Amino acid sequence: MQRLIEGFNRFRLESFPEKRELFEKLSAKQTPHSMIITCADSRVVPEFFTSSEPGDVFVCRNVGNIVPPYAQFTGGVSAAIEYAVAVLGVANVVVCGHTDCGAMKATMTPESVDKLPAVSAWLRHAHVAKHVVDNNYSHEASADTLASLTEENVVAQLDHLRTHPSVAARLARGNLTLHGWVYDIENGGIKAYCAQRGHFVSLSQVLENGESWPTATPPARLSGVLGNAA
Amino acid sequence: MQRLIEGFNRFRLESFPEKRELFEKLSAKQTPHSMIITCADSRVVPEFFTSSEPGDVFVCRNVGNIVPPYAQFTGGVSAAIEYAVAVLGVANVVVCGHTDCGAMKATMTPESVDKLPAVSAWLRHAHVAKHVVDNNYSHEASADTLASLTEENVVAQLDHLRTHPSVAARLARGNLTLHGWVYDIENGGIKAYCAQRGHFVSLSQVLENGESWPTATPPARLSGVLGNAA
Amino acid sequence: MQRLIEGFNRFRLESFPEKRELFEKLSAKQTPHSMIITCADSRVVPEFFTSSEPGDVFVCRNVGNIVPPYAQFTGGVSAAIEYAVAVLGVANVVVCGHTDCGAMKATMTPESVDKLPAVSAWLRHAHVAKHVVDNNYSHEASADTLASLTEENVVAQLDHLRTHPSVAARLARGNLTLHGWVYDIENGGIKAYCAQRGHFVSLSQVLENGESWPTATPPARLSGVLGNAA
Amino acid sequence: MQRLIEGFNRFRLESFPEKRELFEKLSAKQTPHSMIITCADSRVVPEFFTSSEPGDVFVCRNVGNIVPPYAQFTGGVSAAIEYAVAVLGVANVVVCGHTDCGAMKATMTPESVDKLPAVSAWLRHAHVAKHVVDNNYSHEASADTLASLTEENVVAQLDHLRTHPSVAARLARGNLTLHGWVYDIENGGIKAYCAQRGHFVSLSQVLENGESWPTATPPARLSGVLGNAA
Amino acid sequence: MQRLIEGFNRFRLESFPEKRELFEKLSAKQTPHSMIITCADSRVVPEFFTSSEPGDVFVCRNVGNIVPPYAQFTGGVSAAIEYAVAVLGVANVVVCGHTDCGAMKATMTPESVDKLPAVSAWLRHAHVAKHVVDNNYSHEASADTLASLTEENVVAQLDHLRTHPSVAARLARGNLTLHGWVYDIENGGIKAYCAQRGHFVSLSQVLENGESWPTATPPARLSGVLGNAA
Amino acid sequence: MQRLIEGFNRFRLESFPEKRELFEKLSAKQTPHSMIITCADSRVVPEFFTSSEPGDVFVCRNVGNIVPPYAQFTGGVSAAIEYAVAVLGVANVVVCGHTDCGAMKATMTPESVDKLPAVSAWLRHAHVAKHVVDNNYSHEASADTLASLTEENVVAQLDHLRTHPSVAARLARGNLTLHGWVYDIENGGIKAYCAQRGHFVSLSQVLENGESWPTATPPARLSGVLGNAA
Ligand SMILES: [Zn+2]
Ligand SMILES: [Zn+2]
Ligand SMILES: [Zn+2]
Ligand SMILES: [Zn+2]
Ligand SMILES: [Zn+2]
Ligand SMILES: [Zn+2]
Repeated sequence: MQRLIEGFNRFRLESFPEKRELFEKLSAKQTPHSMIITCADSRVVPEFFTSSEPGDVFVCRNVGNIVPPYAQFTGGVSAAIEYAVAVLGVANVVVCGHTDCGAMKATMTPESVDKLPAVSAWLRHAHVAKHVVDNNYSHEASADTLASLTEENVVAQLDHLRTHPSVAARLARGNLTLHGWVYDIENGGIKAYCAQRGHFVSLSQVLENGESWPTATPPARLSGVLGNAA
Repeated sequence: MQRLIEGFNRFRLESFPEKRELFEKLSAKQTPHSMIITCADSRVVPEFFTSSEPGDVFVCRNVGNIVPPYAQFTGGVSAAIEYAVAVLGVANVVVCGHTDCGAMKATMTPESVDKLPAVSAWLRHAHVAKHVVDNNYSHEASADTLASLTEENVVAQLDHLRTHPSVAARLARGNLTLHGWVYDIENGGIKAYCAQRGHFVSLSQVLENGESWPTATPPARLSGVLGNAA
Repeated sequence: MQRLIEGFNRFRLESFPEKRELFEKLSAKQTPHSMIITCADSRVVPEFFTSSEPGDVFVCRNVGNIVPPYAQFTGGVSAAIEYAVAVLGVANVVVCGHTDCGAMKATMTPESVDKLPAVSAWLRHAHVAKHVVDNNYSHEASADTLASLTEENVVAQLDHLRTHPSVAARLARGNLTLHGWVYDIENGGIKAYCAQRGHFVSLSQVLENGESWPTATPPARLSGVLGNAA
Repeated sequence: MQRLIEGFNRFRLESFPEKRELFEKLSAKQTPHSMIITCADSRVVPEFFTSSEPGDVFVCRNVGNIVPPYAQFTGGVSAAIEYAVAVLGVANVVVCGHTDCGAMKATMTPESVDKLPAVSAWLRHAHVAKHVVDNNYSHEASADTLASLTEENVVAQLDHLRTHPSVAARLARGNLTLHGWVYDIENGGIKAYCAQRGHFVSLSQVLENGESWPTATPPARLSGVLGNAA
Repeated sequence: MQRLIEGFNRFRLESFPEKRELFEKLSAKQTPHSMIITCADSRVVPEFFTSSEPGDVFVCRNVGNIVPPYAQFTGGVSAAIEYAVAVLGVANVVVCGHTDCGAMKATMTPESVDKLPAVSAWLRHAHVAKHVVDNNYSHEASADTLASLTEENVVAQLDHLRTHPSVAARLARGNLTLHGWVYDIENGGIKAYCAQRGHFVSLSQVLENGESWPTATPPARLSGVLGNAA
Repeated sequence: MQRLIEGFNRFRLESFPEKRELFEKLSAKQTPHSMIITCADSRVVPEFFTSSEPGDVFVCRNVGNIVPPYAQFTGGVSAAIEYAVAVLGVANVVVCGHTDCGAMKATMTPESVDKLPAVSAWLRHAHVAKHVVDNNYSHEASADTLASLTEENVVAQLDHLRTHPSVAARLARGNLTLHGWVYDIENGGIKAYCAQRGHFVSLSQVLENGESWPTATPPARLSGVLGNAA
């Protein structure tokens, strides 16, 4: 508890005063440019690796950066997506996994979480990724399997994302950008899914080579049919 | 998208190198001291107002800092609690609301989210707070009602937290500390629920007066009965 | 079937005529003072051990005197609580377990009900009690474990009770009394949970010693804030 | 609370001692001959109108004597049926409605429980009865409609009962008897559904006329095919 | 894919032109006389064995010709029944199983579909049939058990059908006819459930002997009480 | 009922004998090349417009040719997909809508099915299509809106299809072909969704112009990574 006490004390005496003006501006309204859905893991701080200020990114964090498909009985992630995409109108949605993810390890060996019924139930939303890996990859080392699973999980959750009405509507029109990332805790790198190429690429290399930024957005379908609809 | 690109670039060139050693240490293990459940709101950055480093706090963020009660069909928040409390063994769980919360405003006027089915469904978990306010408070200004509702929502979600088996077991023994906070975006203050007094108190005043830190933990019941159980 | 036939015949010829006046008065209205949630067990007749007349107690009986937490998809117990507390306005809610309870035995050894899917699913609501016992008690005899589990189950269901909006609202104000009992089939005794002391006490001793009656009610929080709200 | 205190005191001093021997015999085992599913209404005491002693009848009570059909996600009533029919092996299951039932009134005018979400959700299991009445009966007085609805609800819940595997198996063989009753609070009468005639008859008249006892049991189908199965 | 291409080509050049007039008549309205609920099995073409033209039969096909009971959270089969019975007003509902059904084999040996979570979950609706067979039949050959299970599954799904409000209302009045069939893939025969006799009979023999057509309809109960209701 | 009787009689005397050999071959095994998910509408007979013989196509029919996304609590369509794709190994999955669809009309005007709770609940799976149309199309005539909605519904259900593990695994590898069709009842035409072009094209024109057959299959991603996995 001491760490919470000291942490708040440092915040109120040191870091808050530096940003007082920003917070005054933010006190009655938020206009984040992006939504980030990432893992609850303590080492994965999305504001940190996107150099975001308070007010910049709307953040949904859960075990395994899961996006359940939109179904009749929806939960917290669905609510967050609906709020970010339909109410706040964010321009980007990022689904961000990470290396050494406990949720991905548990998905690889489901029997390891047999005594954790809530975790087991939740991770069923990642079974699709395991199914893809089991049926398509042939790795020797389990480290490779973990890396593949982490990537396939991001791809699968992006597919789930498209079943949400608010997302589907804006994707059809082409005014929402999706991103699928895997953050590397050890070296700070990010690999991003490129929908055109069908695999992940290093963002550092993209920046260094001056390549165009890879996204997970499917092609817009309806830009031609638009009339005077909102 | 430009902001995401530039943000990551600044991170890899500037902020990551400063913490390279920390991340190497963290690359294969996390040992956070606390779990923080707070709103997805872009202005509420829990690592910021607790001066936390990567690896310090396990973070679950959703619209309205909701904790659904533990029931037969559990979702992401239940999984996060189970993982943090039973696997990671965090010492504290903080439920943190905030001022100007869109989710609380929507709870006050449910008809405002009629067109948002996922948000509406999710916020049913906050109806208990609205019920408490409607039946017990008599405010003139709606700003007061919003403040009361935000506090009552934190109290209600703390009650939900106690229905989770992993939490109940450690509360009975007395080795888990609960905190119920409301963070003030404008002035950086935090009000904390004091279970003994039954209301919220300012943490800044607590620090300035050298009072003991208020918690939402109910009294341990079973410290006397413990034998050789783990 | 013979027992049902004879039973009704005795009732219509003997017991009904004795209470004809009471039933006439009751024919268009009920005003019970208490709700009792207890086990379906044939040996546990709540009207009997509370010396209640028809019209006195609103009774919800299910396997294991379970109170599921209030969640989005509610069932029969939630409906009964809502009806008793919000419509009928009962002054007390009693959650009453009992000795030699088959549901508690099944909770101790879940594999014994593997072939009973509905019972297994229902008793998941009592897992929280098993989790508390497994992690905190160290008994040698299983009889002791059964007794502890039966008590912890009552405590857990009382915690579930507090997640119901109608209950939370009246508890906050302080005008609803909760009781957590364990009824002893063999000797007719009742042990009641005392929230202040954090353990169960014998009601017979309470009566004999003239002590104040123990309740499971948490302290009222909002008596001070009340204005003209209903 | 005074009534609970005095009630228990009278029980321990007066009624328990009279049955001490019975309770000793019951302390480690129950062998009820029947299961009774009836309303939580305080005026409907099933042990009373069947002249049952402790240990005679296994009792499930909920708002509206509802029996949800057996589905994938089962609740408390399903668990009670499974336990009574498959574990305890009761010979009879009685579904018993009653006059002046608040749940039936709420089913007639669903808008009257709009503010009671748990009650509304639960009573959806009685909509089938309302649908039958709306499409088949033409009453002038609403009292008549209430009586018809109460009867049709018992018939519908009996149909739901047949979807439960443990019930279906014993009905097919012909060794379980079903009863559908409506208890009249004012005059103590019971009307029972006669499956053969397809309507309700007065049990008092049956007894007075020496007629055979009406049941809701469908004809056994499989008595001929039985070999050495258990 | 070639077979789909060629199949459509043959249809548009050969079979469609023969029925052009029928399709013009059907283009804005359907008035099917029956609903058929049967298995998705490719060998079971209900239009074929009932010599139906387009527009004659409303068809719901799923794995195992399952009819989940009507519950609070309904799916596709419930929607189809409601639409066929309440909107289209079909005169008959046929539940049709078949020989060599993969779903029935999976129900006999549930462990064979352990790796198929969706199939396993869905077939829980057929467990009632397995329970009836296990507790009542004693077969030596598993072929006999498969045949019995297939028949009992049809009977069970017919019982589920009666829990649907739209069906219950019309059955009570007596203006809906139910049929329970088992179609024999090898020899084209159909066995139909006769509710009066409680077992299945061959429709070919019925036709050859000029017997009356067997149905699964329970007796109408309410034809006498009808007044001016719709 | 007469039509069912005569239909079966014609089948057994005329159409079955013509195909006796085919049915003998099929009696113990099915090996369909395709799965077709289409509407329960009586005018839409998938075997007819694909010129399929018994044994050729595995057919799932429901109101509105809906494919719920794969979620934790799956129903009949999920089971059918899993069985067809993972067990039977079909090469194609067709999602086929049609003109004049009652389900699509109900989706356009949800208030028209307010009295049909099961239909309303089921059609929530088509809301995503309505959301896409409402936010992107601007039609004057409602006939146009119906056509657009019918197409968008097929596109949306194809997106749902990709969330099913068995489908995702085979799509990643590239050995499953998806088709999205709208069948025109009046003129027998079929329009098919072309994933590359992002809109629907007439299959008759494709055939007449000798164009390549349009499919809804996304590009295979993993053909390169395959090692010795099954
Ligand atoms: Zn993680
Ligand atoms: Zn908020
Ligand atoms: Zn019990
Ligand atoms: Zn009642
Ligand atoms: Zn089949
Ligand atoms: Zn249709």
